[in-house]
Amino acid sequence: MRITFLGTAGAGGVPRYGCDCRACTRARADLAWQRLPCSALIEADGQRILLDAGLMDLHERFPAGTLDAIVLTHFHADHVQGLFHLRWGKGARIPVYAPPDAEGCADLYKHPGLLEFRPLRAFEPFTLGALRITPLPLNHSKPTFGYAIEATSSARFAYLTDTLGLPAQTEAFLAAWQADGLAIDCSSAPTEIPGNHNDWSRALASIQCVAPRHAWLTHIGHGLDSWLIEQPPELAPDIHIAHDGAIIEISAAVRSAPQPC
Amino acid sequence: MRITFLGTAGAGGVPRYGCDCRACTRARADLAWQRLPCSALIEADGQRILLDAGLMDLHERFPAGTLDAIVLTHFHADHVQGLFHLRWGKGARIPVYAPPDAEGCADLYKHPGLLEFRPLRAFEPFTLGALRITPLPLNHSKPTFGYAIEATSSARFAYLTDTLGLPAQTEAFLAAWQADGLAIDCSSAPTEIPGNHNDWSRALASIQCVAPRHAWLTHIGHGLDSWLIEQPPELAPDIHIAHDGAIIEISAAVRSAPQPC
Repeated sequence: MRITFLGTAGAGGVPRYGCDCRACTRARADLAWQRLPCSALIEADGQRILLDAGLMDLHERFPAGTLDAIVLTHFHADHVQGLFHLRWGKGARIPVYAPPDAEGCADLYKHPGLLEFRPLRAFEPFTLGALRITPLPLNHSKPTFGYAIEATSSARFAYLTDTLGLPAQTEAFLAAWQADGLAIDCSSAPTEIPGNHNDWSRALASIQCVAPRHAWLTHIGHGLDSWLIEQPPELAPDIHIAHDGAIIEISAAVRSAPQPC
Repeated sequence: MRITFLGTAGAGGVPRYGCDCRACTRARADLAWQRLPCSALIEADGQRILLDAGLMDLHERFPAGTLDAIVLTHFHADHVQGLFHLRWGKGARIPVYAPPDAEGCADLYKHPGLLEFRPLRAFEPFTLGALRITPLPLNHSKPTFGYAIEATSSARFAYLTDTLGLPAQTEAFLAAWQADGLAIDCSSAPTEIPGNHNDWSRALASIQCVAPRHAWLTHIGHGLDSWLIEQPPELAPDIHIAHDGAIIEISAAVRSAPQPC
């Protein structure tokens, strides 16, 4: 299973408009440090699936017919704003799987164009080709699902944005599931008041609890990037900081009996 | 007064995603024929004002501090979607003048960030520097204002998207106002059923009625562009088809007594 981190930013991106902090200055000088709206491309078993649609140029990156489905974590603008343009296209309809959110975002439901919204239910798996995907409730300010994705190779990847910690049922599911790879919201440096997103400490705590073989921190704000420059922390070798454009290959492990969280 | 047509497309743009019509094929082969979300930059009397904010890369085109204000015609996504990212910036607040629309678009009101929304009233002029701007109600599916903009030089420019025809009061105002330049919604080739936008015939009828010295057709759909390729109509020399990136200079005329519409 191949994962491409298309964007790894929290809302506002890196660089943030008008900001001259160390992280934003670095990202303006070298686009390799830029972070676009948080999203990923999953390629496995002949499927190409876009996880979240906040990139502003989706219609250029993915010409008609090159995506099998879009899967949304939630309907905040930075996760869906690329759909406002894409929807007016012509040709085959694009299935858009999403949490059940009666509000959606702006007039996407009223004028879906070629998008076909398909609301999901928590813990009820659906299939895309041979991929089996389980929606997992997250803790956020709008109905939000993370996704546990399993390929026929048994490779398992979980994608968990946006969230502050994990609901108990989701944590229990993942602790038993034994992910080969996991990407998780880590929006800010350690803080006492994290809002609706993980800070550094809470992201690491969730990773420790669900024990994936490898984890990637994503949905990263400019404040966290600045902290990483100024006070680079030690990080276990199986925990990584995601970057835009990074491609990872997830393969299946021999699984053992799960440990209690 | 300098006007730059930053975008001249109807919703969906040209080329439209997945479309292989003549206009879309031409726009893919030659970006000079591309049309981005409808918007314009007004520069006069030391002011830089953005009319509508649908361009996806506003935060890159206009670094912090380079815009004095944003003026919105209405809150449809293709006219405001660039704000979703821009709002999370740092620095001076940006005034955003707009029609009174309790709904707005998505969570822009809830999380305005550095944007400062200022609702306007129909026919009650406001000033930006030395510019005097009068909001004019239009006929659309959401509360929508066109704008009559006058510089200290007395140059007058009216911007009228999105609309189907013109309300009687707006038409009367403009007929008396004697615009030097006017840009108007012209979304489609002549049609019996134009929806919430002008087709070719209705746009020309409104221009004839309000009699500007020069008029530009904008908010152009791929269907209209295809029709212009296949059946190019004769057009009066003072009526022009707008293109992305076109810059026009509006100067003041000696005005005569207005003619009844």
